[in-house]
Amino acid sequence: MVKSVKKDVVVIGGSAAGVTAAITARRHYRNASIAVVRREKEVVVPCGVPYIYGTLKDVRKNLIPDAVLLNRNIEIIVDEVTSINRDEKSLTLSKGDKLEYEKLILAVGSSPVVPPIPGVNLENVFVVRKDVEYLSRLMAALEKARDVVIIGGGFIGVEFADEFAKRGLNVTIVELLPHCLQLAFDEDYCLMAEQKLAERGVTLRTNERAEEIIGDGKVEKVKLSSGEALKADLVLIGIGVKPNTELAEKADLKIGERKGIWVDKYMRTSDEDIFAVGDCAEKYSFFTNKPTALRLASISTKEARIAGANLFSLKRVNIGCIGSFSTIIGDLALGVAGLTERAAREESFEYITGEFKAPDKHPGSMPNTREMKVKLLFEKGSGILIGGQVAGGATTAEVTNILVSMIEKCMTAEEVATFQFGTHPALTSSPITYQITEAAEEALTKL
Amino acid sequence: MVKSVKKDVVVIGGSAAGVTAAITARRHYRNASIAVVRREKEVVVPCGVPYIYGTLKDVRKNLIPDAVLLNRNIEIIVDEVTSINRDEKSLTLSKGDKLEYEKLILAVGSSPVVPPIPGVNLENVFVVRKDVEYLSRLMAALEKARDVVIIGGGFIGVEFADEFAKRGLNVTIVELLPHCLQLAFDEDYCLMAEQKLAERGVTLRTNERAEEIIGDGKVEKVKLSSGEALKADLVLIGIGVKPNTELAEKADLKIGERKGIWVDKYMRTSDEDIFAVGDCAEKYSFFTNKPTALRLASISTKEARIAGANLFSLKRVNIGCIGSFSTIIGDLALGVAGLTERAAREESFEYITGEFKAPDKHPGSMPNTREMKVKLLFEKGSGILIGGQVAGGATTAEVTNILVSMIEKCMTAEEVATFQFGTHPALTSSPITYQITEAAEEALTKL
Repeated sequence: MVKSVKKDVVVIGGSAAGVTAAITARRHYRNASIAVVRREKEVVVPCGVPYIYGTLKDVRKNLIPDAVLLNRNIEIIVDEVTSINRDEKSLTLSKGDKLEYEKLILAVGSSPVVPPIPGVNLENVFVVRKDVEYLSRLMAALEKARDVVIIGGGFIGVEFADEFAKRGLNVTIVELLPHCLQLAFDEDYCLMAEQKLAERGVTLRTNERAEEIIGDGKVEKVKLSSGEALKADLVLIGIGVKPNTELAEKADLKIGERKGIWVDKYMRTSDEDIFAVGDCAEKYSFFTNKPTALRLASISTKEARIAGANLFSLKRVNIGCIGSFSTIIGDLALGVAGLTERAAREESFEYITGEFKAPDKHPGSMPNTREMKVKLLFEKGSGILIGGQVAGGATTAEVTNILVSMIEKCMTAEEVATFQFGTHPALTSSPITYQITEAAEEALTKL
Repeated sequence: MVKSVKKDVVVIGGSAAGVTAAITARRHYRNASIAVVRREKEVVVPCGVPYIYGTLKDVRKNLIPDAVLLNRNIEIIVDEVTSINRDEKSLTLSKGDKLEYEKLILAVGSSPVVPPIPGVNLENVFVVRKDVEYLSRLMAALEKARDVVIIGGGFIGVEFADEFAKRGLNVTIVELLPHCLQLAFDEDYCLMAEQKLAERGVTLRTNERAEEIIGDGKVEKVKLSSGEALKADLVLIGIGVKPNTELAEKADLKIGERKGIWVDKYMRTSDEDIFAVGDCAEKYSFFTNKPTALRLASISTKEARIAGANLFSLKRVNIGCIGSFSTIIGDLALGVAGLTERAAREESFEYITGEFKAPDKHPGSMPNTREMKVKLLFEKGSGILIGGQVAGGATTAEVTNILVSMIEKCMTAEEVATFQFGTHPALTSSPITYQITEAAEEALTKL
């Protein structure tokens, strides 16, 4: 028998964006009935996926616990939504049941892009699918693998390469562009990453396209544009994602230029009772307001915090994506916030840079001291900070986050140079050589 | 024969403030002749002093290298300035030589406060004097010590206690207030510190005054206000510092309410050709503009960056001290930025707090994950961030520095809750549970 239930708030999708949207809705609307509908019985931590394979060694160590929802009186419905019926404000579930909503949040994520080349359906060719069963099959396949080819040298490819190398596998990255991580970092930082990958035993084949995956049932080789064929008993493809918009399109919601579900500055879709957040939603640049291809879990949760608060009255505005993320290869962490030099040039910014490196503890004789380097970009006329890159150790990501807050508040080089950081010998660089202020000072000498 | 030499810029003092002032002057005035006059042949890293004794184990591993000045064509003059002759804009050095200046920066630091109690001059009673020879004597005395009493449970006392404990010494802290670190942190954070000190084997005697140091030539006991006498073969006193103002007073420069050399918002003293920076200079609160007793190396270098840029024309303004520092006891790091609850109450702020704790990596099964806790204070009417405290691991100080930049730019709870941090499994907490945004969300539920 077909049932019909009504909730004040329904979230479709149970990954980072959906969970955060539901939690935020609960915080801001204490008495609302809230349900999360998701397909997966168990949800993997999206950013943790590469780390299953060399560090955690178990898919089940990388799950988002249901308790984060259940503890907040948020219902979990494991089912598939087959359609959104906007007129009656209801969802149809897989067996025909209806779920009515007052407000709906789409957090349906993205899917890995599969390149249209021969052989992608051979056995032991994997993409990065956030699915426990699929990721377990990858784990099992790795147990028997020796030669692994990773197609795509973005941060997903690089993180998998480093994890696979920890297992002693023979790993090759095939990247179309001249450098790994080139869409995220400037060349100087890409080169540091590439050197570290080489040290870890990873082979890089940049400026190369994977043209065909060859094998008899099972993958045996990857043929490159140069004509060469790399031996491979496992291939992982990580060349990007595309937003999941089928449900939204079927419901006739507007789709954006970059193929995400169109949203306004309050995360509302073209239907004011339906919000979209995370990988499925269109993103706009903080700097230009143009649609952007940035897709990160931290952006997803920011959008979820905006949508969750705005459900029944508008409280929060999305100022656009600054873009910040970090990664680690061996012991080298890299972080980026805002625009790289390449991105700044493409947008016709005139900019100056300042760079400074110094030990990340003080004095440099403190145990576990390593060098940390910070590069900053300032718009030349206003002196406003528009981007930064960091290379260092354990504090790299949070140092990058300092830059994010400075970019968000349009701090100028003068303000950055007199930033009132605190220091400690075991935790930060010296107050004389604090990399952020000194990089700003270096930039100011060029104004 | 008495010589006279003229420099465009003379800095008196060669520690963090003096070095940074000279480097900043060089950056902003490329062709100026610059000299640093200092008494010490070798300069110790001020914040590193406690770490000489348990971690570095060598005073000489904690020096500021002269190269940071010499490489920038800044002259070092090891001598003592006996007077400032403002009319002729010159300094008199110890042997009568004159040194003329166009602009002068006083970075003459502070001296440890010695309590007026009997026995402070006994052998093996030490204060924290930033002097290589003196600190070497402390090292030698420690070699033979077993029972150590530290008078003062502020961060200097606590850091020395932890380092002495690493040497296997029997360490007791005597603190006048109910808690260690009470002037820096709220009680909940002090309790975490005290618990960690106890775990490390340090004995705490809070609510106790050291009334007398007893011994026959050499210290033997410390008598407390409760009447008890603690066995001690070494005593370290760390109860605060007083600004060094003798030179300035002799030159008739104005002295501030809290006994530092009076300065304006550009770090100029009452003589416009003389600047003062660091521990010797008066400090003003960012929040109230009242004189404050905050004295930290990071504040010193900020002031030095302001003065060094302003020497020949005003470029930078001092917005006042926010106050940020961090410390570490064992594996527990603590950080504070801006106002504590106690300080906010004292200044009649109405505030709300939000607190959130979560693993500092994600998923929590990542290696070396530990809990990180963040507490934020917002002014109730405006929702503006006025303070924060952090307890965690290696990233604590830089997470605290994120709070500093948010306080500097008057970010509201709504802005903090939608802060666009970046995350990484091995480097930060989860984007779902990022402590700063979640603490802001918790605070917002109270508005």
